[in-house]
Amino acid sequence: MRVSQQRLQNDLEAIGRFGRLEKGGYSRLAFTEPDRQARNWLQQQMRDIGLDVSIDALGNIRGRREGKQDLPPVLIGSHLDTVPEGGNYDGIIGVLAGLEVIRVLNEQTIKTERPIEVVNFSAEESSRFSVATLGSKAMAGKLAPESLQSLVDKEGCTLQQALHQCGYSGEPAAARIAPGQLHAFLELHIEQGPVLEAGNVDVGIVTAIAAATRFRVTIEGRADHSGNTPMGMRKDALAAASEIVLGVEQICGKEAGERTVGTVGYQHISPGAMNVVPGRVELGIDIRDVKMADKDVAVAKVIALMKGVAQRRDLKIDYQQLCNDQPVELSPKIIDCLQKNADQLHLSSLQMPSGAGHDAMNLVGLTDVGMIFVPSVDGVSHNVAEFSRMEDICRGSDLLLHTVLQLAQE
Amino acid sequence: MRVSQQRLQNDLEAIGRFGRLEKGGYSRLAFTEPDRQARNWLQQQMRDIGLDVSIDALGNIRGRREGKQDLPPVLIGSHLDTVPEGGNYDGIIGVLAGLEVIRVLNEQTIKTERPIEVVNFSAEESSRFSVATLGSKAMAGKLAPESLQSLVDKEGCTLQQALHQCGYSGEPAAARIAPGQLHAFLELHIEQGPVLEAGNVDVGIVTAIAAATRFRVTIEGRADHSGNTPMGMRKDALAAASEIVLGVEQICGKEAGERTVGTVGYQHISPGAMNVVPGRVELGIDIRDVKMADKDVAVAKVIALMKGVAQRRDLKIDYQQLCNDQPVELSPKIIDCLQKNADQLHLSSLQMPSGAGHDAMNLVGLTDVGMIFVPSVDGVSHNVAEFSRMEDICRGSDLLLHTVLQLAQE
Repeated sequence: MRVSQQRLQNDLEAIGRFGRLEKGGYSRLAFTEPDRQARNWLQQQMRDIGLDVSIDALGNIRGRREGKQDLPPVLIGSHLDTVPEGGNYDGIIGVLAGLEVIRVLNEQTIKTERPIEVVNFSAEESSRFSVATLGSKAMAGKLAPESLQSLVDKEGCTLQQALHQCGYSGEPAAARIAPGQLHAFLELHIEQGPVLEAGNVDVGIVTAIAAATRFRVTIEGRADHSGNTPMGMRKDALAAASEIVLGVEQICGKEAGERTVGTVGYQHISPGAMNVVPGRVELGIDIRDVKMADKDVAVAKVIALMKGVAQRRDLKIDYQQLCNDQPVELSPKIIDCLQKNADQLHLSSLQMPSGAGHDAMNLVGLTDVGMIFVPSVDGVSHNVAEFSRMEDICRGSDLLLHTVLQLAQE
Repeated sequence: MRVSQQRLQNDLEAIGRFGRLEKGGYSRLAFTEPDRQARNWLQQQMRDIGLDVSIDALGNIRGRREGKQDLPPVLIGSHLDTVPEGGNYDGIIGVLAGLEVIRVLNEQTIKTERPIEVVNFSAEESSRFSVATLGSKAMAGKLAPESLQSLVDKEGCTLQQALHQCGYSGEPAAARIAPGQLHAFLELHIEQGPVLEAGNVDVGIVTAIAAATRFRVTIEGRADHSGNTPMGMRKDALAAASEIVLGVEQICGKEAGERTVGTVGYQHISPGAMNVVPGRVELGIDIRDVKMADKDVAVAKVIALMKGVAQRRDLKIDYQQLCNDQPVELSPKIIDCLQKNADQLHLSSLQMPSGAGHDAMNLVGLTDVGMIFVPSVDGVSHNVAEFSRMEDICRGSDLLLHTVLQLAQE
């Protein structure tokens, strides 16, 4: 029993119509028009294969296939939103593999003991609201109601406004599910790193997920004429920001844990003209690790760095900690189940941690959680060059199919 | 014989309607809608005080008051465009003082030997097209025809498109004037530095103008996932850009001439999201000095810096030199004339160089050129806090009036 490569390919092409960029790649930020088009398409697909569609207060879309018994379901899925100038694989293949699992079960007229649900989590990417996995956070009761107002995109649109524009109520409590309401959660995802491809390994079985600490930093210097302001009299916010960029690189690369990574991914410079000393810079810092202790070391050093820069340059640096998440370990039971199925399917496999965060991490504590990684060509993701081979996607989907079937028969 | 503070004040308020920002300050970038409104207003004012209005191919607006004889005129003026989030004084008071000089001569029914013309130069600020003083450059034959296509704003609009949108043909050769066609040029401007205010001096008499060398720099790294890309495997374009920002600060502040200044005023980061390692950064470098030799030293070191960063980080850094201007000395005859008139008007004065570039510098070589500086409160300009006192503007305008009158009677 195998998934159909052709059907998966068709779905990938269909979803690729939404948010495709002329120069290549995709921009389908959460709750924007392309994301809404993708959501509508998904609901239609779900109905076409006989699923009952429900959408919660955060816009998480679930399609349910009933089981023989009214038991907690096995949930499978991922997300359809992308970063700006991203690819068509990150998250997407997890949702499409979910649809394909249902199609195979329909085709084989297999009725499972437990219901199976396919899910598209809202706003997995942090690109729009600076915080990742909003939909699954809400489902796990980890999204504070204040977030609806405090999370704001670059254009000043709050999370609540974005949700309302899509017709979702936005009340985090209404999206929450209780422990015991799910039997298991499985997410198939691209690796987003070079390990599987380099080792010529078919599938990754994820053992743990790294977590992020993030800061939004505001530097207030003074805008001045670039020609008439002597170097010694400047309060250049961009020079201060540059010290932070290089400091984050140095701390995370050399002065914290072995797997610590740190990134300044954006800066907004004001006024931002050739002949004006920058007066104000806003920037984002993202620090990640699979070990909390190592992340804590990096975070403490970055905070000390910012204080030092502010003092030395006599300007104001404020920071807001957007999140400080705990790395999580996935279910030994599901890791074991995935390993056995991979072996039976003659797939080469590797048990490995995930450096990136995923919706799966939020469901740990609510139910047994497992993840399957599919190789990423050149390890590239969050980039228009993101690519995974259809054969690899199918191998991972086969593993998903057999593992879901086993869990749904329990 | 004095200028009218009330009339100058009225004009300042009138022009302040165009491009005013809600949070304070002004954004009246060259050839944008607010600039076009200001241009229309100026033409009406010129006609109201009896000037013959002509507009050349680059949109430079001249208003002519005939003399007794058909001799080369005395030209006075500056520019009405601003930087983003700029003030209402830089450039503006030079044009308004020109109008006021004409009003006083009309009031006193003084007919000069030579014609007097008031000018508003196009696109003095480099904020939109990265190159400054476009209008006066064209007038002096220093604007290459290729610039119409090669100069592009952030939205991809070429200089030519912007000019056509305003109804100007854009042909640089058509705007050119020959040596001998002007008798003199005088520009009144805010100091944009702290010297006059600190010394409690009424007016500055400018002796020389610093010039800029500018680069547009493009750094091509690789966009990657911020969680799954180890620090040692990154090609982070923003980290490379940050080394350039701090290198420019170090070189211009410590390793070049006494008066050298260097600024990175903007950066465009792509894709620019919290969770993506920046793949591409474009930035602008502005280096200035009143001594060409010192500027050359700084420029050479900045170029070496960029090459070193590209090599060390194994990424691509391309740069385009946008300009490499020569500092200029102003006319000893006019400096002398300004000095005598300042003394007769009992104005305290200081002969000083200008660290900022001005339209005046382009007219050196075409005619005798002089500049008057008015104190800037706190030395601030290119900033919403830019301010000059009306009394100071009037003192400078009185000096302009008497000097123009003297030159126009020659």
